[in-house]
Amino acid sequence: MKRTTSEEYVKRLDALRNEMLAAGTDVYYVPGGDFHMSEYISDYFKCREYLSGFDGSNGEMVITKEGAFLWTDGRYFLQADEQLQGTGITLMKMGEPGVPKISDFIKDALHDGESLGFDGRCVPAYFYDIIKKKLGGADVAFVTDIDLVGNIWTDRPALPSGKAWILDDSYTGMSFDDKLTKVREKLAEDECDMLVLSSLDDIAWLFGFRGNDIDFNPVSLSYAVITSDKSVLYMDEEKAADIKDALTAKGIEIKGYEEIFCDLKAMDPALKVSLDRSVSNLKLTSSLPGNVKTVDKPSPTVLLKACKTETEVENERKAHISDGAALTRILYYLKKIQGTPELLEGKITELDVAEKLLSYRAEADDFKGESFAPIVATGAHGAIIHYEPTPETNVPVENNTLILLDTGGHYMRGTTDVTRTVSIGTPSEKMKKLYTAVLKGNVALSHTVFKKGTVGRTLDILARKPLWDLGYDYNHGTGHGVGYLLNVHEGPQNISTGVRTNGGTPFEIGMITSDEPGVYLPGEFGIRTENMMVCVPKIKNEFGEFYGFETLTMAPFDRDLIDVSMLTNDELEAVNRYHKDVYETISDLLPEEVKNWLCEVTKPLTR
Amino acid sequence: MKRTTSEEYVKRLDALRNEMLAAGTDVYYVPGGDFHMSEYISDYFKCREYLSGFDGSNGEMVITKEGAFLWTDGRYFLQADEQLQGTGITLMKMGEPGVPKISDFIKDALHDGESLGFDGRCVPAYFYDIIKKKLGGADVAFVTDIDLVGNIWTDRPALPSGKAWILDDSYTGMSFDDKLTKVREKLAEDECDMLVLSSLDDIAWLFGFRGNDIDFNPVSLSYAVITSDKSVLYMDEEKAADIKDALTAKGIEIKGYEEIFCDLKAMDPALKVSLDRSVSNLKLTSSLPGNVKTVDKPSPTVLLKACKTETEVENERKAHISDGAALTRILYYLKKIQGTPELLEGKITELDVAEKLLSYRAEADDFKGESFAPIVATGAHGAIIHYEPTPETNVPVENNTLILLDTGGHYMRGTTDVTRTVSIGTPSEKMKKLYTAVLKGNVALSHTVFKKGTVGRTLDILARKPLWDLGYDYNHGTGHGVGYLLNVHEGPQNISTGVRTNGGTPFEIGMITSDEPGVYLPGEFGIRTENMMVCVPKIKNEFGEFYGFETLTMAPFDRDLIDVSMLTNDELEAVNRYHKDVYETISDLLPEEVKNWLCEVTKPLTR
Repeated sequence: MKRTTSEEYVKRLDALRNEMLAAGTDVYYVPGGDFHMSEYISDYFKCREYLSGFDGSNGEMVITKEGAFLWTDGRYFLQADEQLQGTGITLMKMGEPGVPKISDFIKDALHDGESLGFDGRCVPAYFYDIIKKKLGGADVAFVTDIDLVGNIWTDRPALPSGKAWILDDSYTGMSFDDKLTKVREKLAEDECDMLVLSSLDDIAWLFGFRGNDIDFNPVSLSYAVITSDKSVLYMDEEKAADIKDALTAKGIEIKGYEEIFCDLKAMDPALKVSLDRSVSNLKLTSSLPGNVKTVDKPSPTVLLKACKTETEVENERKAHISDGAALTRILYYLKKIQGTPELLEGKITELDVAEKLLSYRAEADDFKGESFAPIVATGAHGAIIHYEPTPETNVPVENNTLILLDTGGHYMRGTTDVTRTVSIGTPSEKMKKLYTAVLKGNVALSHTVFKKGTVGRTLDILARKPLWDLGYDYNHGTGHGVGYLLNVHEGPQNISTGVRTNGGTPFEIGMITSDEPGVYLPGEFGIRTENMMVCVPKIKNEFGEFYGFETLTMAPFDRDLIDVSMLTNDELEAVNRYHKDVYETISDLLPEEVKNWLCEVTKPLTR
Repeated sequence: MKRTTSEEYVKRLDALRNEMLAAGTDVYYVPGGDFHMSEYISDYFKCREYLSGFDGSNGEMVITKEGAFLWTDGRYFLQADEQLQGTGITLMKMGEPGVPKISDFIKDALHDGESLGFDGRCVPAYFYDIIKKKLGGADVAFVTDIDLVGNIWTDRPALPSGKAWILDDSYTGMSFDDKLTKVREKLAEDECDMLVLSSLDDIAWLFGFRGNDIDFNPVSLSYAVITSDKSVLYMDEEKAADIKDALTAKGIEIKGYEEIFCDLKAMDPALKVSLDRSVSNLKLTSSLPGNVKTVDKPSPTVLLKACKTETEVENERKAHISDGAALTRILYYLKKIQGTPELLEGKITELDVAEKLLSYRAEADDFKGESFAPIVATGAHGAIIHYEPTPETNVPVENNTLILLDTGGHYMRGTTDVTRTVSIGTPSEKMKKLYTAVLKGNVALSHTVFKKGTVGRTLDILARKPLWDLGYDYNHGTGHGVGYLLNVHEGPQNISTGVRTNGGTPFEIGMITSDEPGVYLPGEFGIRTENMMVCVPKIKNEFGEFYGFETLTMAPFDRDLIDVSMLTNDELEAVNRYHKDVYETISDLLPEEVKNWLCEVTKPLTR
């Protein structure tokens, strides 16, 4: 792709300011999201990137008459600084001293009698609530039905037009009717008569389809409304062509994507609506009749979707066998290239490894694609937490360092997300010490027993403690939920210190969560060890119910990096038991030489 | 004391209803607290006990024309049920299904045109806020300047009249001026001009005195107001007699206890007031001019008081040496009476042990009394978490079981709170397993390193995990702050799951907190192991600042109860190192035979 010049961005901003003038808007806000507040977005929605050239995953802009400002977080300060060169756009480093929050900035930028504009379809209602509150009684108008970037973006990509497809109930073990009954029960608990859904994975889960509209996330652009007697899916006709008959047969009505706005305007205002203002766009909430009662809370689908059915868990176990075999083959490959001229001469790159791993995964009959952009990071790249190799950043796999692989796949049998860190050449004592500390954390978390009602922020320290004890830490969460052939990052549960998120959803049986402590030494190397785990019952007695985790991921740890003297007996036993499981579970799927290697590297470690 | 008959309580309620009629009050609320929302209260304030006979530490009453209702929590259901027999008072079991919250009950009990009465001096302002909010726009009057129980309580005890005394700065290492400067800095951060203080320990801390008004809590009934140029202590003249000169010399003005209400009414309404509505009584907040601006947050003294000075920490170390020696003597005594006829014939009771321990503690020159009512609990009594032996409950120390001692002392050099559980006779394997699990938790918490900013709810699982792993739990927090020659329970930090409290105050250097996991088997035995710890700096590097704990308590664990096979090498080493410390630190204070015994029981444990 031809790189856009900085002059071009200056021109675009000028053009946008003309549009602002024409629309009577003094301050224009460009969010980074799509109509559904998705984590990943399709190209159509990349307005901020079109306007600024900055293509990090987190960025929002405010354009005033005099200036243009872009907010992003610490992961992207360097990248944004570079990409914004010459554009005249001011980089606003989120969280840095003296840098205002975007809502405070907007408040201060607006004077009495002025107006704030944005595309209300791309802004969650709660953002509007915040701005509104900050402005207090100020005389400021909102213009929220304009897409000014769209007006100037002549070669804008089309909205995605992937076709949705049915995921048969035999894969998920729960029918639409059963899901609908549960959703309606939950609505009744809040005395709600109607649910407005706009999160794409929730809609796909509820109606039992998957889509092709967003890279890595098998979802389809759609909205949905559930009432006591109706279920309506709003999706473009062509997109719904292959699912229409099956859904109609289940009593689901399918209407055009945009028709939801008219339907909401025309709804019976006596109904009470359940709707989450943090994920519903402002155009949706503004379409509701003014006097309608609403309950602002997460959709009941969020928790229902997170608690996987027995069928889903059983399928996930199988998916992880295929996936573990593919991963084990790449681990074998990485060990075998040690010392070869090919490696030493720099002929094997990160992208080569990613491609090879993808080809192994793709051998599974039901492989549907990667679940996120693969991270294959050699040496110092491993210390960049969100690094992903691209043609621009790709480098040869280095010797005498570590390589970090954080990758995953979608299968009909579920979604995987796994990280292994491997030494190439001779690891240093520091590498072994830190790898073992990370492993201790991973094992402590996956093997703990905990009281029913426990939330992720309570468990986080189990993974972090071995690093804290040595004076190290990692600046990310310890675990996230994972969807079933859906988004690789899925709520509501997570495992984190709770500083950024409340970590407040208790674990429930069937929840699938990652366990991924790490440590990152800038300029040196990075380590992360990630397994996926499913929450299972453990003990029930007069002290209460206790849960624990079963590990789904099936791939060996790098024994070259384990300092056995740092492990307790319990930890050593846990690692040996896991390695035994891995061998017994996946070895039959491996080529003979890989199988023999796996047999060697999963033999019990001893003191 | 003669036991009051149930008929007498019925009469008291009738008399109260006459008072309600005279006062024009339809519903009367009797809280359980004093004017300062103290944890312990003096007899003057025991209105609920006078009215109902129920003497648990937690209880509130609502009296309507038709009925009388008493709320208490699960610890006291049995006791309340018994004590309320024949009184006609309905027991409201807090947290049980179908039992309304007291605020909901009050709301439902009031009809339009009716009035709610209570003594506004005994009710925190935030409770009034809650009731007011629940009532919405209902036409209900509040009568908050009546003490109807006081009207009928003919032989009511007097308000406590203990004399306050100066605690010299040499004990605390911080002058009044330094404290005042810090308080004023914090007030300035919130743009406040005035602080209204009503927590008795905060007032004692700030002005550098201690008192004699409440059992176990060395505080004096008082209020205080700090402005940019004045510091006023409101305390009865006689009570202040011994501190008046010293305080006046520091520029502190002393006024009568009740004068604060007039002073608040007459204050400059342009001043902005910092005041915590959860600990300030309604009479205080109602005295403020109607248009005065207030900031509702914890007083800055709370955090300042919690972070002990270097002098205080050094003194606490010394206090724990005296205290540990006393405790070690009782541990020796308990081991020596094993198998004796005296024990086997039931001639040694829980109260005997408590008395003997008190006599050992009292040998220290600067001993000021017990820091709370001692818990000495043999056998099944140990499973009652809040058990304390009284002449009514006292039993002989049993053989072949455990005895739990949770006791503490006040010294000029600080306050202690320590729990040891000891086997008498031959312990069972179950006792050893659970004792060792509790010990593992205690050691894991006291030895962890954690990132600056970490809150107690993050650390809680370290103490709880060894029990959870075995399917056990304890239904109380893991740690609480401890005052310096002040309240044995002190905020703002605590260590808990965060279900009941937010556990949201990060640890800071100098905070002193208890570490007290336990396990309780009703009808069998109870185990708790409690040490006090001070927060200390550990590591500072590019990953941040890391803190940890130094253990203050100096008394051996019961090696007869430790199953070494359950300990990791690190845990075994930690226990052995602690025992070595204990011996080296306190042995010179012990009588020869105790010293020899301590030498034996602190020898390294081996596998």
